[in-house]
Amino acid sequence: MADRPNTSTSGLSRRGLLTGGTVLAAGAVTAAGGAAVDRSAHQVEPVRASTTAPTVDGTAVEPFHGPHQAGIATPPQAHAAFVAFALRGDVDREALSRMMRLLTDDARRLTQGQPALADTEPHLANLPARLTVTFGFGPGLFEAAGLSDRRPESVRALPAFTVDKLQPRWSGGDLLAQVCADDPLTVSHALRMIVKDARSFTQVRWTQRGFRRAAHSQPGDMTQRNVMGQLDGTVNPTPGTADFERAVWATGGWFHGGTTLVLRRIRAELETWDAADTVAKEFTIGRRLADGAPLTGKREQDEPDFSRLTAAGFPVISEYAHIRRARVNDPSLRILRRVYNYDEGISADGKADSGLLFASFQADVTRQFVPIQRRLDEADLLNEWTTPIGSAVFAIPPGCAPGGWIGETLLT
Amino acid sequence: MADRPNTSTSGLSRRGLLTGGTVLAAGAVTAAGGAAVDRSAHQVEPVRASTTAPTVDGTAVEPFHGPHQAGIATPPQAHAAFVAFALRGDVDREALSRMMRLLTDDARRLTQGQPALADTEPHLANLPARLTVTFGFGPGLFEAAGLSDRRPESVRALPAFTVDKLQPRWSGGDLLAQVCADDPLTVSHALRMIVKDARSFTQVRWTQRGFRRAAHSQPGDMTQRNVMGQLDGTVNPTPGTADFERAVWATGGWFHGGTTLVLRRIRAELETWDAADTVAKEFTIGRRLADGAPLTGKREQDEPDFSRLTAAGFPVISEYAHIRRARVNDPSLRILRRVYNYDEGISADGKADSGLLFASFQADVTRQFVPIQRRLDEADLLNEWTTPIGSAVFAIPPGCAPGGWIGETLLT
Repeated sequence: MADRPNTSTSGLSRRGLLTGGTVLAAGAVTAAGGAAVDRSAHQVEPVRASTTAPTVDGTAVEPFHGPHQAGIATPPQAHAAFVAFALRGDVDREALSRMMRLLTDDARRLTQGQPALADTEPHLANLPARLTVTFGFGPGLFEAAGLSDRRPESVRALPAFTVDKLQPRWSGGDLLAQVCADDPLTVSHALRMIVKDARSFTQVRWTQRGFRRAAHSQPGDMTQRNVMGQLDGTVNPTPGTADFERAVWATGGWFHGGTTLVLRRIRAELETWDAADTVAKEFTIGRRLADGAPLTGKREQDEPDFSRLTAAGFPVISEYAHIRRARVNDPSLRILRRVYNYDEGISADGKADSGLLFASFQADVTRQFVPIQRRLDEADLLNEWTTPIGSAVFAIPPGCAPGGWIGETLLT
Repeated sequence: MADRPNTSTSGLSRRGLLTGGTVLAAGAVTAAGGAAVDRSAHQVEPVRASTTAPTVDGTAVEPFHGPHQAGIATPPQAHAAFVAFALRGDVDREALSRMMRLLTDDARRLTQGQPALADTEPHLANLPARLTVTFGFGPGLFEAAGLSDRRPESVRALPAFTVDKLQPRWSGGDLLAQVCADDPLTVSHALRMIVKDARSFTQVRWTQRGFRRAAHSQPGDMTQRNVMGQLDGTVNPTPGTADFERAVWATGGWFHGGTTLVLRRIRAELETWDAADTVAKEFTIGRRLADGAPLTGKREQDEPDFSRLTAAGFPVISEYAHIRRARVNDPSLRILRRVYNYDEGISADGKADSGLLFASFQADVTRQFVPIQRRLDEADLLNEWTTPIGSAVFAIPPGCAPGGWIGETLLT
């Protein structure tokens, strides 16, 4: 490699001293057995872009029809937009049926790489890039339909948590569309078509856009890092397993095959997180930053040993570590995290507006999500560096057959 | 093709005529050979996502060192962030040198997949995904350095154009960093590191984020569509040709091997654009939407025949069509368009905030960019649907050698 990283100009050592970088590096090496800031781990082969195999997969299609909506068990695409609508005052059950027929038709076509029926830019539709469009119903939709008695009991605003600093501009909503694809232009176009067709029935309440690693940046089955640098999603139910089925899909009645979505906008306090050293970060999470292994293990997938003590008699994984507080032993009570990063404006003084769109799917919010969040709320070291600023809960109706539409089991 | 009301008038804001004229509509469908809204053209093969080859190329690296900065002749990556800084009052030539040494070191490391020297999240650095970081100097930087006499004459605010509705929040700036990569998390991390290290010298003036098709959505050498659905960038100098060299790189003095960047934020008036029919859109552009072929040709790369007349004696490609107004016959006077889309909030009534980050590189703004923009300003049908809301001009210094830094030929 042409670069000689450590032989650069003199101004740099000064900065190292100013930021405490030397101390940080030394501490991390001690704590993590040298793995934490091992520069050699970051060396990459000097792959020239031009040698990359010319894979082309914008035409990849996710199936639309089935017992469940797509966009849940679907391996997360690189880009997501969540848009929440408020229903107009005159929208009743009959209008909701018309609207959902229309939106289902849009989603069915667009996800298969075909223009929406009244598509204004049909040429933007032919690269679906694994597009999925997933619809959700907030409490207000059940009310508008006169069907509050059929609302899944746990689909309502979450209880208040002490860590919350919720802003109305990122919270609530009667109708949700989650639009995901591996291509950002595809998301942009599909979102526009959905919003356009929802307009006579709704107003837009909020839009939240998120991203993950690009589709080809790393192997698809590798856990991704989030904007805070943590490996995010190590413990997640595996699609296709019985545990996944029980944890994610609701059973019985109109909601059979549906699920619920909790979407929390969680601001990362990156200024102070950046100021913390590796030791503090790893103590907070209970995992090593370098490889995601629990502090009691060697590999990311090793089971944490919460009972292990240090020589001094303290737990190796703190009582207040994030992975201990978030732990759910019963696999059928776990939640499916399908998390995106967000990164928006930068303030004049250089502070990022960045964090997570924490999207979690579970059969029942009250039994699965709420207990976890309560434990985190009570005592999670990570609370120091994260602030929930938005919150919304939606019932995600089951999928539909080729002749059907999303919501038909509720609205007809 | 009997009568095209606009071809013989000076009434360029006749969108009503264009979009409402059934006579015109009939005529242009003939011109476009009926290809305009052929639904079958949008069918895609039902490729299943699971059959996609597992290419992994997050480690792909673009070279950092050389006579020119990277990020200009580099094939455009999928994601871009442009951040403009205002220098703090006490920043002089010596401080600028320190700052550019620091920022160059960051860019050198990050683009090669290595953490910045004081990287707070080093693990986010190891997937560069063709990252480039390109620096630019606005007029204010030359002033702060006491080197206004060495400012390339054309690096200054553009002349006022009648179409402009410029907003200060998207305009100007003393220092620019253009951060591009095929992975959005890579852009996010690199941007944060650059902003962090620029903080003691600057305030952030604005940040603009843009996207193109994901790296693998379509073959890399295919022209992309923009948010308006147009094939965008058909006529662009080809890197490696003598024409490209002459059009893009400045020669002589400290600026040898440098270039200039004009960055215009151009809002797309998608509400009315969507309301226009295909005929009106193609008449406006002078190309067919379906395949980008000029209205006088068959394929995208066919040379437009600006002299061809209809049977009634009117030009097939209108006097006011975008491709005629933007045309530059001398290849050495062309500009290198390296355009991104933006798509941000959606208003309560469902209107998109979307458009183009029109980034154009050229050896000399006054000789190359300004004459084109004047012609477009005077009479371009596309003005009806696009509004420049931001504008900034930067000198892009030459590249540097492994021991050097960006700006050294000016600041030392």
